[in-house]
Amino acid sequence: MFRRNYSSSLLEEAVDQLSSLPGVGRRTALRLALHLLGQPRENVEQFAGSLVRLKRDIRHCPVCGMISDDGTCPVCGDARRDPSVVCVVESLRDVLSIENTGQYNGRYHILGGIISPIDGIGPGDLRIHELNDRLAAGDIAEVILALSTSMEGETTAYYLYKQISRYPVKVTAIARGVGFGDDLEYTDELTLGRSIANRQLFKP
Amino acid sequence: MFRRNYSSSLLEEAVDQLSSLPGVGRRTALRLALHLLGQPRENVEQFAGSLVRLKRDIRHCPVCGMISDDGTCPVCGDARRDPSVVCVVESLRDVLSIENTGQYNGRYHILGGIISPIDGIGPGDLRIHELNDRLAAGDIAEVILALSTSMEGETTAYYLYKQISRYPVKVTAIARGVGFGDDLEYTDELTLGRSIANRQLFKP
Repeated sequence: MFRRNYSSSLLEEAVDQLSSLPGVGRRTALRLALHLLGQPRENVEQFAGSLVRLKRDIRHCPVCGMISDDGTCPVCGDARRDPSVVCVVESLRDVLSIENTGQYNGRYHILGGIISPIDGIGPGDLRIHELNDRLAAGDIAEVILALSTSMEGETTAYYLYKQISRYPVKVTAIARGVGFGDDLEYTDELTLGRSIANRQLFKP
Repeated sequence: MFRRNYSSSLLEEAVDQLSSLPGVGRRTALRLALHLLGQPRENVEQFAGSLVRLKRDIRHCPVCGMISDDGTCPVCGDARRDPSVVCVVESLRDVLSIENTGQYNGRYHILGGIISPIDGIGPGDLRIHELNDRLAAGDIAEVILALSTSMEGETTAYYLYKQISRYPVKVTAIARGVGFGDDLEYTDELTLGRSIANRQLFKP
């Protein structure tokens, strides 16, 4: 009887909205909605408010695309970081992942997506113009391409390589190979093949 | 570097709030927050607004606890449903599940939880007083206990049975047994044992 509308258009609307989140189906969305319905009103308002504030008040660095609360980029504004190395990534999430490794001390350039004709995303939809501006300014010695190995990622990398090659900078890409802790047996053939082709001197 | 604070207290607060949802860890919460950050501002406001309205505007039936938009209970207010049978459940979610079967035509009583001393939930925290009122009114012939088979569920069922037995009503419980499509091999011993003990005449 309530299969469609749960007897309440308010619940239905909340479930619709929650199921628009990535990885959240209607069943999970209903569970989340009922959870929120069981919370005190202040908590739900605080929950919703934090999401509105996130979208409304967050600032993006005009140079690299990184986020901050007050407009001061935590990466570009950090004098201890090397301004001559720029790591190009698809999204903010990749920046957070790389920062978590603690292995990188240069700057970033967030593209805001990758070239994907099937999704109607072309070079003009990405922050490539901004990357050109940074390269034209002439302070960059190396650009690291840290894009995914999907067809879209490879296409984007190739497009960027053609663009960047017009400037006197070194273009590198992050190393591909067998992950630490991975069994060779369970590594796909492409990765294993590349990791043999790209073998390095053993340093005991 | 951003392992803790993601360079933005706004993002951190949103992740904190999202990870308070059931089944959502911090990694998923970050993914959800970044997804919302990538949406147009109107969409995020609509998303957040639907959750605030859900909590603020929804009405609960004072008799059975069911939700509605306008205060008219879709179950108690439905003259085609049998008012003499009441199915007692833990939560609204259980009502929605039973309604989805299309097999029940009586009314409900939502307890709003189950007796769980470890969580500090006693009989006084549940809508048991309201159930007593309904039984005292004298129009009920059968109470169906549809509670979970956990220790808390069994405790609650026993407590309710003692309460309900003071009135001249039949007390039943939903059937337990091997689910349709389940392999006997993978059914737990308790369920399989009970389903043999409670065997029924075969109707071909």
